[in-house]
Amino acid sequence: MMPDAFKFDPREGILEILDQRGIPFEVSYLKCSTSDQVAEAITSMAVRGAPAIGIAAAFGVALDALRGRDVLEAIRVLGATRPTAVNLFWALNRMRSLADLPGDRMADAMVEEALTIWREDLAINRAIGRNGADLIPHEGVVITHCNTGSLATGGYGTALGVIRSAAEQGKRIRVFVDETRPRLQGARLTAFELFNLGIDFTVICDSMASYLMSRVKVSCVIVGADRVAMNGDVANKVGTYSLAVGAHYHRVPFYVAAPLSTFDPNCPSGDRIPIEERDPDEVRCVMGSELFPPSYPIWNPSFDVTPGDLISGIVTELGVLRPPYEASLARALDLWKARSQSHRGGE
Amino acid sequence: MMPDAFKFDPREGILEILDQRGIPFEVSYLKCSTSDQVAEAITSMAVRGAPAIGIAAAFGVALDALRGRDVLEAIRVLGATRPTAVNLFWALNRMRSLADLPGDRMADAMVEEALTIWREDLAINRAIGRNGADLIPHEGVVITHCNTGSLATGGYGTALGVIRSAAEQGKRIRVFVDETRPRLQGARLTAFELFNLGIDFTVICDSMASYLMSRVKVSCVIVGADRVAMNGDVANKVGTYSLAVGAHYHRVPFYVAAPLSTFDPNCPSGDRIPIEERDPDEVRCVMGSELFPPSYPIWNPSFDVTPGDLISGIVTELGVLRPPYEASLARALDLWKARSQSHRGGE
Repeated sequence: MMPDAFKFDPREGILEILDQRGIPFEVSYLKCSTSDQVAEAITSMAVRGAPAIGIAAAFGVALDALRGRDVLEAIRVLGATRPTAVNLFWALNRMRSLADLPGDRMADAMVEEALTIWREDLAINRAIGRNGADLIPHEGVVITHCNTGSLATGGYGTALGVIRSAAEQGKRIRVFVDETRPRLQGARLTAFELFNLGIDFTVICDSMASYLMSRVKVSCVIVGADRVAMNGDVANKVGTYSLAVGAHYHRVPFYVAAPLSTFDPNCPSGDRIPIEERDPDEVRCVMGSELFPPSYPIWNPSFDVTPGDLISGIVTELGVLRPPYEASLARALDLWKARSQSHRGGE
Repeated sequence: MMPDAFKFDPREGILEILDQRGIPFEVSYLKCSTSDQVAEAITSMAVRGAPAIGIAAAFGVALDALRGRDVLEAIRVLGATRPTAVNLFWALNRMRSLADLPGDRMADAMVEEALTIWREDLAINRAIGRNGADLIPHEGVVITHCNTGSLATGGYGTALGVIRSAAEQGKRIRVFVDETRPRLQGARLTAFELFNLGIDFTVICDSMASYLMSRVKVSCVIVGADRVAMNGDVANKVGTYSLAVGAHYHRVPFYVAAPLSTFDPNCPSGDRIPIEERDPDEVRCVMGSELFPPSYPIWNPSFDVTPGDLISGIVTELGVLRPPYEASLARALDLWKARSQSHRGGE
């Protein structure tokens, strides 16, 4: 059985975050009662995945509100944890909009808002899954990268949600899972999820994906996103771009699956997305073992940017967006904002 | 200082093989007095790299000749160690041509032949280096994959030999080293060699190479080869093909450096090259730590095939071969055979 990525105890005001660093061998939770503990869980990648980071951050603010701490400071600290995924800032903005409420009402409203963000994310994932399932044929072969499943989100998953949804339709699917160096989220997390879901999968090294495409008819590649620019450029886990170039060369459709909260209306193109560079030891040390001495230089960008012109479609909760992305993304975001406003107005 | 890949003691008849699995942290040698021990060193990848495998195998046969053992059986066992690198079979054929000599003369001749193969390989590497050095400009940025240095050869290196040779000309060069999953020969061996040579380098994960090409002006990619087919298709360490596709997309010249003993006149195209698939645990376990349980399926091809049309040039000891490869390879092999025969005739 899949463990939950989060557990929230409203009486104690405790958020338990699954420590994904132990998966697939160990299921343990970090008990967080303050925003600092949540920020540490995000920074250390105990919790990762753009939607999951947004949910964790929302709860982080709510925890401080419950304890009468400075929520604006909490928002500042949480906002400094990771620069690339935009859901983080989107979720914190939703929390900030409640910061003017009086103390006790604010705490209740913030807990409710964090729970809503979580609940909404699950519903959004299911919609993404439904909208994308047709992209994967029966007997299809799919390559995916990093982890975009229930661990990376409020549950169900984005790109992995599309795969699950196609499998739930009764299609037989074979998934090749990029191990996803340096942190191996594919090998550790996605393989674990697919194993638990009973979906046929094979782990490969990232560098084997193009060779696979040259030997086997791959139906499509599907990945998640950490930030989508308004021209369709996508920041996602490093290695995504290499996979997109390989798919382009082999004429394999390349899809991105992401909630509209991942789209950044303030970001016209991918070159404006800040790319986090993380500790070189993520490359140098694997599972605690050193590959080489610390004096050897390393480049460790955590994400890369795939230009929209390599992307066949972007699967969202409002449907599959197609090129030209300037037009389709603007339309989708307008619709999304209108729905969000009418939804909030109706509460 | 760089340790030698081999040491041979002619009085004792002992070949010491550097156990590359300990590099960069530990320098230790496997003492081999029989072909079986050499075969085990090759199979376990204590020694790897197409030219180095050829040299080790030649010595393996000579060791058995020295001890009065069945050299044809030695050739059979050594020939079954690894299927992809053709230098192995080429070196064993050279040894087999001496197997009809009478006992004591055969042993001496075989030792001499193994030493000659080793010595020739070093000279060939230096010629490859000279011939390829012009491909790398001053202030050039180069990406390489796996290990093609003095550890992979009789000394100096093939692709790394070209880089060394350009550096020895006084050019300032920056090398990005693919870590080369699953066995991390780039991170462990190439980084170690470049560190020892004082050449500027940076280790990256394999999946970052394309992203690097999109951000930085890369002068060229240069890799080695395990087997070159007569149409210019090249089998080399898995990940080479992905790198070639990335270079093609970014219009970065992609070069292969290999001795003519790596060319297979019996192999018209890459789809005829047998691709070794190795133990899945090479992917699943890194430095002894498991990434996931043994029940998860893995695909672990040790090599891939890069079609000649993605290759800008092949650097050999006789010069840089250019497309169309059918013509340039045939010409080079004819010249090479003629030289080998006149060389042997003159001995």
